[in-house]
Amino acid sequence: MTDIRFSLSQQEMPTHWYNIAPDFSEPIPPPLHPGTKQPVSLSDMTAIFPENIVRQEMSPERYIEIPDEVRDMLALWRPTPLLRAVRLEKALKTPAKIYYKYEGVSPAGSHKPNSAVAQAYYNREAGVKRLVTETGAGQWGSSLAMACQLFGLECTVFMVKVSFNQKPYRKLVMQTYGGKVHASPSSETEFGRRVLAEDPNCPGSLGIAISEAIEQTLKTPDTKYALGSVLNHVCTHQTVIGLEAIKQMEKAGAEPDVIIGCIGGGSNFAGMVSPWLERKIKHGKPYRVIAVEPDSCASLTKGDLRYDFGDTAMMTPLMMMYTLGHDFIPPSIHAGGLRYHGMAPMVSHMYKLGLIEAVAVPQSKIFTAAVQFARTEGLIPAPEPSHAIAVVIDEAIRAREEGKAKNILFNLCGHGLLDMTAYDAFLGGQLKDS
Amino acid sequence: MTDIRFSLSQQEMPTHWYNIAPDFSEPIPPPLHPGTKQPVSLSDMTAIFPENIVRQEMSPERYIEIPDEVRDMLALWRPTPLLRAVRLEKALKTPAKIYYKYEGVSPAGSHKPNSAVAQAYYNREAGVKRLVTETGAGQWGSSLAMACQLFGLECTVFMVKVSFNQKPYRKLVMQTYGGKVHASPSSETEFGRRVLAEDPNCPGSLGIAISEAIEQTLKTPDTKYALGSVLNHVCTHQTVIGLEAIKQMEKAGAEPDVIIGCIGGGSNFAGMVSPWLERKIKHGKPYRVIAVEPDSCASLTKGDLRYDFGDTAMMTPLMMMYTLGHDFIPPSIHAGGLRYHGMAPMVSHMYKLGLIEAVAVPQSKIFTAAVQFARTEGLIPAPEPSHAIAVVIDEAIRAREEGKAKNILFNLCGHGLLDMTAYDAFLGGQLKDS
Repeated sequence: MTDIRFSLSQQEMPTHWYNIAPDFSEPIPPPLHPGTKQPVSLSDMTAIFPENIVRQEMSPERYIEIPDEVRDMLALWRPTPLLRAVRLEKALKTPAKIYYKYEGVSPAGSHKPNSAVAQAYYNREAGVKRLVTETGAGQWGSSLAMACQLFGLECTVFMVKVSFNQKPYRKLVMQTYGGKVHASPSSETEFGRRVLAEDPNCPGSLGIAISEAIEQTLKTPDTKYALGSVLNHVCTHQTVIGLEAIKQMEKAGAEPDVIIGCIGGGSNFAGMVSPWLERKIKHGKPYRVIAVEPDSCASLTKGDLRYDFGDTAMMTPLMMMYTLGHDFIPPSIHAGGLRYHGMAPMVSHMYKLGLIEAVAVPQSKIFTAAVQFARTEGLIPAPEPSHAIAVVIDEAIRAREEGKAKNILFNLCGHGLLDMTAYDAFLGGQLKDS
Repeated sequence: MTDIRFSLSQQEMPTHWYNIAPDFSEPIPPPLHPGTKQPVSLSDMTAIFPENIVRQEMSPERYIEIPDEVRDMLALWRPTPLLRAVRLEKALKTPAKIYYKYEGVSPAGSHKPNSAVAQAYYNREAGVKRLVTETGAGQWGSSLAMACQLFGLECTVFMVKVSFNQKPYRKLVMQTYGGKVHASPSSETEFGRRVLAEDPNCPGSLGIAISEAIEQTLKTPDTKYALGSVLNHVCTHQTVIGLEAIKQMEKAGAEPDVIIGCIGGGSNFAGMVSPWLERKIKHGKPYRVIAVEPDSCASLTKGDLRYDFGDTAMMTPLMMMYTLGHDFIPPSIHAGGLRYHGMAPMVSHMYKLGLIEAVAVPQSKIFTAAVQFARTEGLIPAPEPSHAIAVVIDEAIRAREEGKAKNILFNLCGHGLLDMTAYDAFLGGQLKDS
């Protein structure tokens, strides 16, 4: 029997998150107050986040203990499996070994619940009664709706309209968990109404949905805002992925040469790669780390590094990040989770410091890779991690051409069972690159 | 940290399936040839199944070795986790401990691939090029399409029309795996055309779809038929569920008092309970074992035990089973996987011998249970295993009322992420009991 599955017990789940911020050779530039242009203070941030989360966002600690109640909740689906894709290797006739961490076993089918349960916990601890958020493809919204239900909070979600229409099942998942869902731009907020007045057919964007969620938060008592990616604390919560992967690759007896993940806001990528980058920074490990983005929304490879707003209505602090501009509205690609104008400051910083590479791929290429993966490995990947798969395949083919054995590790951050209309479009020849 | 997750490594996966047939106190009555009324011979069966599978169907062996290639394929998602539902226990204020085996981590989201990969393997070994099958909710069709793709076979699926319409994503899953899908009754077969001529709006049934699949098999070269439930070999393939659960309950340090599963054709139930029944038969273990069926298609509790056809067109051998009649067309409930007129001869025999109990529940009750489960445990269960959950909740409440601690184990045979329209109907108050 071939060893393809490297599992951990509940007791082997990480006890601490890893916060890469203090380990960078220079600090991440701080977020700025949009009015004063001075670094934001704790009290600026507590209008929309509880203080315990703001402290975590700014934390100088490398290792942050995961509260017991959060670990108990994570154990509903963690540790997640790490597998070796021997059938894909064979199909590609590559000497490379391909490993993937599979986050699709969570109730929402992706990595998003990792941060959702942590955020719901800290908000409940802070006495918050209700969370408001936005969601792209619906992965984050479903995850937060679930986490709120599990911790006894109410949840309201502004869902980007194009995904609301393309992915009706995700909306129903949120409602099953008791969440309230609005298509964004919506008539629920002043900002939404303004956008609709200008363009009644606006497909929406994460930037717009964030603005709506923040506006709603500010006008509702006992309510805070939650973000599913971009911010430091979200990236840190996701490091359970990479920390587990390190133990599992040790069980596999393999050290990765290349580590690959997709990027939208940046959290699944940061979660997978930060613990490996700790080794690269401290022990000079020669890992190549590659971030893969859609070429129609390519903040790292086509954006500028500068201070920009996280949302369209310019309500958030200014963050130092690679950005296409806060008013950029990405085309309606199927990888809804990657349609964000900016990149997490943490990931932007990794890129600026040369710790990671970035590559942009077109939509048709990622679905070709997705179908090849499904037909060799069985799992149907979500469009988002299929970006990573496309580059994994490129790297495996290069290994064949160069005649080099190497170990490739990637994050398969979710399954595509709720994205089947995208596969339908691709298999029917109706999917276009924009 | 509470221990809620009991995992096994790849190496702990069962090496043999358990075939309960030889352990019954009296043999299962053999299937009969519909013409001669004599027990079917091996050569009668090889018209539609390869000989290696027919031998397994009739096998007198208790423990059947799982071929290495099949174990390698099962390792793509197995061993599956066993969890303790501590949050549901707390919500029910019950002294009972509730454990569930979770089969939804497979690529298709259910237990069905367990038999699909075995059947595809044996057919490929026998030189078959193409498999034809039917599917209800689409779980089996997706699983066989995946297994055929992994073993290099072609796959054609007749999907019950009501599910074809209710669950478009499952059709797309089959197509992504390269399967060909027809809504049944279809115009592809003589029998389908006859049914459509009588009733153009016929919602279809598993019985009709089986007839169409068999007809198509018989008229296509190098082609065999595959069934996703009912038959002995299918029930036997599913025993990996129960065999793993035994090891996992040992790790949990708990012996079940009650074991619960849902029944449609009977395979997930047989797979979970057979290995426990071996202990009940041989060592007198006092397990209560409960099969839960929809009250609108209640073969065990409302059917008769007699020889009947497995399909509507009377093409299969006669099987001794609890049946509502081979021409029974069940109402269009959302648990499409349980809409079958008969019950696996193996499960029928368990019931006849008094080894198991049976109970029928209405649709509204199962969705109430499903939503309670989702909102406490996070996972959204498929409508089929929600039948089991409804009775688990009843048993847990009874334990509270009687003040008795007990261990309840059930099979959560699939997630409901592709069944969200059913949740939509329920949450919107539009779901009716029929």
